[in-house]
Amino acid sequence: MTDPVDEVARRARQAQRALRLAPSEARAAVLRRLEALLVEREAALLEHNREDVAAAEREGLAAPLLRRLALTPAKLATLRDGLRQLAAWPDPVGQVVLRRELDQGLVLRQVKSPIGVLLVVFESRPDAVVQIGALALRAGNAVLLKGGAEARASNRALVACLRDALAREGLDPDAVGAVEDREALGRLLALDAHIDLVIPRGSSQLVRHVQASTRIPVLGHAEGICHLYLDRAADPDMAARLAVDGKCDAPSACNATETLLVHRDLLPHLPAVGAALRARGVELRADPQALPHLAAHGAVAAGEGDGDTEYGDLVLAVFTVPDLEAALRFIADHGSGHTDAIVTDDAEAAARFLAEVDSASVFHNASTRFADGYRYGLGAEVGISTGRIHARGPVGVEGLLTTRWLLEGAGQVAADYGPGKRAFTHRSLPT
Amino acid sequence: MTDPVDEVARRARQAQRALRLAPSEARAAVLRRLEALLVEREAALLEHNREDVAAAEREGLAAPLLRRLALTPAKLATLRDGLRQLAAWPDPVGQVVLRRELDQGLVLRQVKSPIGVLLVVFESRPDAVVQIGALALRAGNAVLLKGGAEARASNRALVACLRDALAREGLDPDAVGAVEDREALGRLLALDAHIDLVIPRGSSQLVRHVQASTRIPVLGHAEGICHLYLDRAADPDMAARLAVDGKCDAPSACNATETLLVHRDLLPHLPAVGAALRARGVELRADPQALPHLAAHGAVAAGEGDGDTEYGDLVLAVFTVPDLEAALRFIADHGSGHTDAIVTDDAEAAARFLAEVDSASVFHNASTRFADGYRYGLGAEVGISTGRIHARGPVGVEGLLTTRWLLEGAGQVAADYGPGKRAFTHRSLPT
Repeated sequence: MTDPVDEVARRARQAQRALRLAPSEARAAVLRRLEALLVEREAALLEHNREDVAAAEREGLAAPLLRRLALTPAKLATLRDGLRQLAAWPDPVGQVVLRRELDQGLVLRQVKSPIGVLLVVFESRPDAVVQIGALALRAGNAVLLKGGAEARASNRALVACLRDALAREGLDPDAVGAVEDREALGRLLALDAHIDLVIPRGSSQLVRHVQASTRIPVLGHAEGICHLYLDRAADPDMAARLAVDGKCDAPSACNATETLLVHRDLLPHLPAVGAALRARGVELRADPQALPHLAAHGAVAAGEGDGDTEYGDLVLAVFTVPDLEAALRFIADHGSGHTDAIVTDDAEAAARFLAEVDSASVFHNASTRFADGYRYGLGAEVGISTGRIHARGPVGVEGLLTTRWLLEGAGQVAADYGPGKRAFTHRSLPT
Repeated sequence: MTDPVDEVARRARQAQRALRLAPSEARAAVLRRLEALLVEREAALLEHNREDVAAAEREGLAAPLLRRLALTPAKLATLRDGLRQLAAWPDPVGQVVLRRELDQGLVLRQVKSPIGVLLVVFESRPDAVVQIGALALRAGNAVLLKGGAEARASNRALVACLRDALAREGLDPDAVGAVEDREALGRLLALDAHIDLVIPRGSSQLVRHVQASTRIPVLGHAEGICHLYLDRAADPDMAARLAVDGKCDAPSACNATETLLVHRDLLPHLPAVGAALRARGVELRADPQALPHLAAHGAVAAGEGDGDTEYGDLVLAVFTVPDLEAALRFIADHGSGHTDAIVTDDAEAAARFLAEVDSASVFHNASTRFADGYRYGLGAEVGISTGRIHARGPVGVEGLLTTRWLLEGAGQVAADYGPGKRAFTHRSLPT
């Protein structure tokens, strides 16, 4: 009696052993094949997705989730663009990170290698199947996908595209596996012998649930409580522009600005910032010092939780600080270590902010919304990590790689080295 | 009522916020001060250590553990050498990993930063207090130390040296904290808000216990079941030399060779290898094919568990394989992903072995014992990781660092970029 959940993980491990040895060209060909399949099967994919959307509408899924769930020809075109780019990129696997002579005829290399088997848990967005699946395969990893029940038909159709693309290029389709129910996820999270990394993409609750349920390493972000600090030397127009972009460009994104910190000397300029935000429909929740300056723009008094909340919506907390020092302390105490920005024309204040704020991304005179793998030029994005190890901030294909150390010698033994014996040369060599 | 365990972690977090901003010179000065304190207090340190050793002897601690527990003037001199080197090294904090123009006047930098608060759990060896404590501080991290009860007096005296060195250089001594009992460790492992990384150094059981007890990321190695594969084209003398070094140089080390795989065509040369091992007191446990070739050297038949065991002792499993393919499969199925080596004069076999074995360290014609941070030239060693994320293989100061992304702009907003709008330049800049 084989447990089918165990079996899907076991097969992924087996398939990955072959995949990591497949030539770069074969892994790139899988992505091009996938691109072609997305064209070939577009009508069927959209039809499956319509089933999911119709069912979700009947169940009363919220509008933003419905938007994430819905596939469109435009979304499919974007996915295909991404696949083309990813296939054209230089192979990340095998790149030499370091080369060092340890002694004459004893040379060490550190090379990039796939991590192994990834488990990706995501909600709503079926495009994640293609985006993360393709990234994983490009980097030589196998991937197990657990999508949301609301996208079941879409996910199945897209997983079939991935598996067929592998098979048509002569690779083992089991390098992509899928599980569909929560109970199966629970069992996968126990398989630390078969799974090397879990990537939860979705709500903070999902991430925390996964972290608490497994001893497999987890790459995920807990929360994005991002601050925009308007320094006393902020340009007021820039302040308004960055506040509006940070809050309104994509309010549900984790890099959206949630809290505006205002230097008290800048309060006279706050009404203009408030007007710009109000014009975009933002609800302002201000502390007692800021409130009078925003009352004309419908602000309400900040209550419990404001300043510590990822609203994910057109709501912004506004807090006043007496100086830069207090702003830094506020961010350390209330931030989530995701992305924080300062607006200032004072180079010294900017330098201090960049040095002292201990977040994954720290900006000067730029919107918090720039914290994103595509904008950083990392190619496709696996997610944004607020964890502090392995990968931090926007994670591209690098986050799906590890390294191996390769040593080539001529029969050297360790006992010959040490105090009073042979010394290592430790000479850097060109990679 | 403050929980003292919570308090020590909270204070470490607070101290780390200041430490990471202290200039490189101040962090280096702490190490030089520590070096001086180790000289000043040598007699007292050795006296405290003698208490621990005497108590451990009374309790019948095994000889290898007693050797690890005992401090000597020579061990202290080695520690001081390490501190001097570490203080002289270039500061790892703030190094620029990547610089990229996203658009005109919008420049991204990725810089190395401390991880934060580390929890190090170790057994027996009190020197770990100095080695790991110093590495952590050099990289701007705070560190909580939980040593073994058998080294309590030694650990206390060494922790006092670290804390005094910090205080004398005007830094907060709470950047180094200590807890002493198991119950306190359990509570620290729950403090994922205050602790960023746990580094268990000790037995596989300890590492597994820690991994199962926390959602804080763990950097540790599970086991070192290292293979030495003697290919058909192995030089027999080299084979014997590497087998002896791999097994005998330090049998309890995790990079010691535990299993010898022998190509069946090489079996005629196995008696010479067996004789060399036997001369060093190694007990051989051989499969039916190898056994006749080793019977003259006291070999016994391999039983259950042989080939899957980290002996940590002068015991070696010997298994025969029909070809390279089978050796690769054996290592994939029975290895622990730590270090595996091939002995061969066949360049093609070597290349295949280096490409296909998916272990942290993979060697050609070199002893498995070279898998070590000092030998790799990483400076001091935090440990050897068989995990596949963050750091893999021997871990130096790099493993105690993360990165931050710093973006400097002139008021740019994300809404201005995208299809039909401004394009990113994504131009590499010199670091």
